[in-house]
Amino acid sequence: MVNGYTGNILRVDLTEEKVSTENPDDIFYRRYIGGEGFVAYYLLKELKAGIDPLSPENKLIFATGPLTGFAIPGTGRNSVGAKSPLTGGFGEAEVGGHWGAELKHAGFDAIIVEGKAKNPVYIWINDGEAELRDASHLWGKVTGEAQEIIQKELDDKLIRVAQIGPGGEQMVRYACVINDLRNAAGRTGMGAVMGSKNLKAIAVRGHKKLEVIDKEKLRAKIKEFNEVAYKPMKGYFEYGTGGGIMEQFATSGNLPTRNFRDGNFLGANALDPGIMKQEISLKMEACYACSIRCKKIVEIGEPWNVDPIYGGPEYESIAAFGSNCDVDDIKAVCKANELCNKYSIDTISTGVSIGFAMECYENGILSDKDTNGIKLNFGNAEAMVKMVEMICKREGLGDILAEGVKRAAEEIKNGADKFAMHVKGQEIPMHEPRLKQGLGVGYTISPTGAEHMANLHDTSITSERSIAVHSAIGILEPLELDDIGAKKVRALVYYSNWRNLFNALLICYFLPWDYIDIPEIVRAVTGWYSSTWELMKVGERITTMARVFNIREGLTKKDDWLPERFFQPHTSGALAETSIKPEELKNAITTYYKMMGWNDEGIPTKSKLEELELDWTFQYL
Amino acid sequence: MVNGYTGNILRVDLTEEKVSTENPDDIFYRRYIGGEGFVAYYLLKELKAGIDPLSPENKLIFATGPLTGFAIPGTGRNSVGAKSPLTGGFGEAEVGGHWGAELKHAGFDAIIVEGKAKNPVYIWINDGEAELRDASHLWGKVTGEAQEIIQKELDDKLIRVAQIGPGGEQMVRYACVINDLRNAAGRTGMGAVMGSKNLKAIAVRGHKKLEVIDKEKLRAKIKEFNEVAYKPMKGYFEYGTGGGIMEQFATSGNLPTRNFRDGNFLGANALDPGIMKQEISLKMEACYACSIRCKKIVEIGEPWNVDPIYGGPEYESIAAFGSNCDVDDIKAVCKANELCNKYSIDTISTGVSIGFAMECYENGILSDKDTNGIKLNFGNAEAMVKMVEMICKREGLGDILAEGVKRAAEEIKNGADKFAMHVKGQEIPMHEPRLKQGLGVGYTISPTGAEHMANLHDTSITSERSIAVHSAIGILEPLELDDIGAKKVRALVYYSNWRNLFNALLICYFLPWDYIDIPEIVRAVTGWYSSTWELMKVGERITTMARVFNIREGLTKKDDWLPERFFQPHTSGALAETSIKPEELKNAITTYYKMMGWNDEGIPTKSKLEELELDWTFQYL
Repeated sequence: MVNGYTGNILRVDLTEEKVSTENPDDIFYRRYIGGEGFVAYYLLKELKAGIDPLSPENKLIFATGPLTGFAIPGTGRNSVGAKSPLTGGFGEAEVGGHWGAELKHAGFDAIIVEGKAKNPVYIWINDGEAELRDASHLWGKVTGEAQEIIQKELDDKLIRVAQIGPGGEQMVRYACVINDLRNAAGRTGMGAVMGSKNLKAIAVRGHKKLEVIDKEKLRAKIKEFNEVAYKPMKGYFEYGTGGGIMEQFATSGNLPTRNFRDGNFLGANALDPGIMKQEISLKMEACYACSIRCKKIVEIGEPWNVDPIYGGPEYESIAAFGSNCDVDDIKAVCKANELCNKYSIDTISTGVSIGFAMECYENGILSDKDTNGIKLNFGNAEAMVKMVEMICKREGLGDILAEGVKRAAEEIKNGADKFAMHVKGQEIPMHEPRLKQGLGVGYTISPTGAEHMANLHDTSITSERSIAVHSAIGILEPLELDDIGAKKVRALVYYSNWRNLFNALLICYFLPWDYIDIPEIVRAVTGWYSSTWELMKVGERITTMARVFNIREGLTKKDDWLPERFFQPHTSGALAETSIKPEELKNAITTYYKMMGWNDEGIPTKSKLEELELDWTFQYL
Repeated sequence: MVNGYTGNILRVDLTEEKVSTENPDDIFYRRYIGGEGFVAYYLLKELKAGIDPLSPENKLIFATGPLTGFAIPGTGRNSVGAKSPLTGGFGEAEVGGHWGAELKHAGFDAIIVEGKAKNPVYIWINDGEAELRDASHLWGKVTGEAQEIIQKELDDKLIRVAQIGPGGEQMVRYACVINDLRNAAGRTGMGAVMGSKNLKAIAVRGHKKLEVIDKEKLRAKIKEFNEVAYKPMKGYFEYGTGGGIMEQFATSGNLPTRNFRDGNFLGANALDPGIMKQEISLKMEACYACSIRCKKIVEIGEPWNVDPIYGGPEYESIAAFGSNCDVDDIKAVCKANELCNKYSIDTISTGVSIGFAMECYENGILSDKDTNGIKLNFGNAEAMVKMVEMICKREGLGDILAEGVKRAAEEIKNGADKFAMHVKGQEIPMHEPRLKQGLGVGYTISPTGAEHMANLHDTSITSERSIAVHSAIGILEPLELDDIGAKKVRALVYYSNWRNLFNALLICYFLPWDYIDIPEIVRAVTGWYSSTWELMKVGERITTMARVFNIREGLTKKDDWLPERFFQPHTSGALAETSIKPEELKNAITTYYKMMGWNDEGIPTKSKLEELELDWTFQYL
């Protein structure tokens, strides 16, 4: 048995109301692994070019990885993918929680959802069996209500639910898929695709015991990890993402402020999860099998009334609704976050859309009439929360913002486009590309548009200490933040490919599993005789497949670019004299293409596709 | 300490009679590692383009690797490099024995020899000290005599000597460097460069204890290795290379027969080291610290009188003097081998040169007058041995053949060139490219000309069992021998880069250290936090540097080609209907270029050089 490991993939045809199981061979599993690898494979193989992402012809793929469902910290994740209604290109997002592990225990590695149900339905997967169930009574319900009804009617409190709220039903273009009420497959609008299919939820329950090839080795690795992981992860353990770093982010210029315009946000400390703990009830919980409980649970009374079942805000959400909207009221931020989870819309795109609207408002491009009288100034916490609600419900200006800043700017006109902070239609996440300039290059070339996940965070390769880890892949020297020369691009290539591998295996980026650990764990679980080389190449394969998908959908080199704002410095603060040089960015992008084995236009060469065993995709170029 | 590991490099200027020590920084060590990596670095950095390889401007580099000198089986090797007088391009060869380990224990990782001594000298390196000593009394002496004199005059029987015999002194273009009398840095004419410098030998003695970062881990790896290595290595342990496989090689067509013309060598069994053991005294010995004693020692009386101090023939030598010359007399083969070690000339190039002359003779291109009356027919064992001697001493036809088949054919004319079996001037080694067709592609693109070492042996990726190992680098399925499509080229790219890494670390290919073991050993010894990815990229770096060197020296795409003979099948036997298709070969070569990140002309692109941190070499293209 060279490749060995295989499993079951569930296919659900909503139009025909059919479910079936497929068993790809062991080489398929080893070559594409799972998660984003499966997503990229099925989207390329099965979608027709040029389809409307919100039509029945789109497919929505839920995929776990070979490590999902084992007691390995950081692996309680799954991936959701489809053609993105936000970018028109490759759509994919990952999410933590417990749903992925439950799916695996129910006997499936992935689900391919196709077609469109006549009436709202949900999928019920129970220990190897799958069925479609009516969801008419759930349609219009917020996530908390829907989950409660499902668990009740199937009579099992331990059923895990991945679902959409009314934001997904109404196809907010950046609607997300919500697991366990508080974990979001946030980006690229996967919830809108789910809504377009009249699919409300996927409820899962499973009891299957998963097999490990080398139990002893796996146990030893996890023990080793748990003994050393707490120390560097203490901040996450106590306060989750953002804990203790808000002020530093503001000072360094990393914290997006007033729609990425300014560098002088004074309220950062008030938004810090460390402070949060003193002011509001904050508890922590963990994803499946994770020893780092980094997920916040907040409870707030009047006037905000934030229900703890919806968790609490991650760093991205805090910054998007906080500094990016000039809001320093953490309770308002928590409310905005709760609404997003209730209605299933992405906090980053929502916050950036509101920041965009605020800047339009302050510049007279949007009037009080446009906002239904809401004073949409930067810093107006109530207005911010109100706008979240309006987006969730597609009310008034909310209906325009629900299309994302790119389309909203086209609709609003009058120069609004210069305030639309996006790449390929996806809103910029909460890391400043003028500070982390390699990340800025990554924003331009990421297949899903501006994305901070499978991207290089320059701050992680600027110290000798951090280099000690990354030297494993040949990054031997610390690099400067504002360098986007060949050395930085090389780091971006390696790093982003490796992170796409993480999205196939479905491992959390936060945990310090490194280039040596991962192949060891993969060997122990799957029996594949795998190395850092093989796995890095899987990551490269996925990056490349996503690129081929985008090219097939008509995206070109022109779509690989940053908003003009990033070519000017901040109005104040640490980055008051620092910006990205367009000429340098252009060179960096070309260098990225070349290092990836793509041509000057960013199109993968035939030989690169052959090297990655993707010759079957050449027909799409 | 991210990169940490460093050491001493000895520089010897023969013209100025100066020795000095250099200490490159730790990043240099980690980026180029040692052996062939150091050779490629110094040749590119320090040689002027276009120099005569036999002029004082050439430099001769001896280099060990970070594993050399430790008790790790398979690491008792060193590399020797210079601009090759045989190919006019990148010259490099590796050699086993004890000399490399001794050099390391004497406190040096490498020696750069430059200039030319006025009179013959040798270098004496003793525990951190180095001096030049007169070698006038050694000049003209065969290796056995020279070593004895050196050990006597320095009064230490344990001194290790790397040296040339009269073949090197007379600059036979494929003269080699001989370690311990019986181990040859055989290929690319490094012995001729040594001769051109009036450098007879490098004598070494050292007592330094080498430090390991993680002793326990290293000990565990070696224990694990010694417990499992014997089984697959039993043939090597009993009979060395060629043991038990000659007949099978003849039957499959792999055994070069009558200058690569035929496929029906009936005497294979008589040449088998298994048979050898019954007919002649055969003992086995090991390189430094190796548990697999694969080196033959033969002793033969009248009429051949083979002295056991010169060891015995490897598979390459048996085939080159045996089947390739149609000789089935193993004693004659042993004599030819002994002469080569005495005079320090490469057995492969010598055997192929004689096979070439035999075919010329049988076709009337060489006459009895040309051969001084020797009946140089295929199968004439005595004539074969006599020709070895004449090449060693540059007598008569031997003087012409001492230039290698490419130059000899130019001298002889009359269509001799169609019998000249070489790539880039280096004679083809003893593996049939019509059988192992991926290896055939490898012959064309190898920077040193036809070379079987840092090359893909297709037979190692044709079974499920072998794939289990190579799956570690993503070769997941067995491939066909006669396939040279993209899948095979991909395997060639990965495999040959990995083997160039072995030539930097200086590990023996025969031992079953694999893609997972090697990074573990490197981590234990050096403290580098290294992975299969980093090390594979070092291999790629070295392949690329050697290519850049060749381009600077004027070699082009046109030099990447096989002799016409390989486009026709064998006259008989298993390959009577199999040959390489020129069109397929052309495609395979272009695919190789592209997969390596080179352009259509085989020139590395700027971005590839940047990715490999070789931007400093771009000036040479």
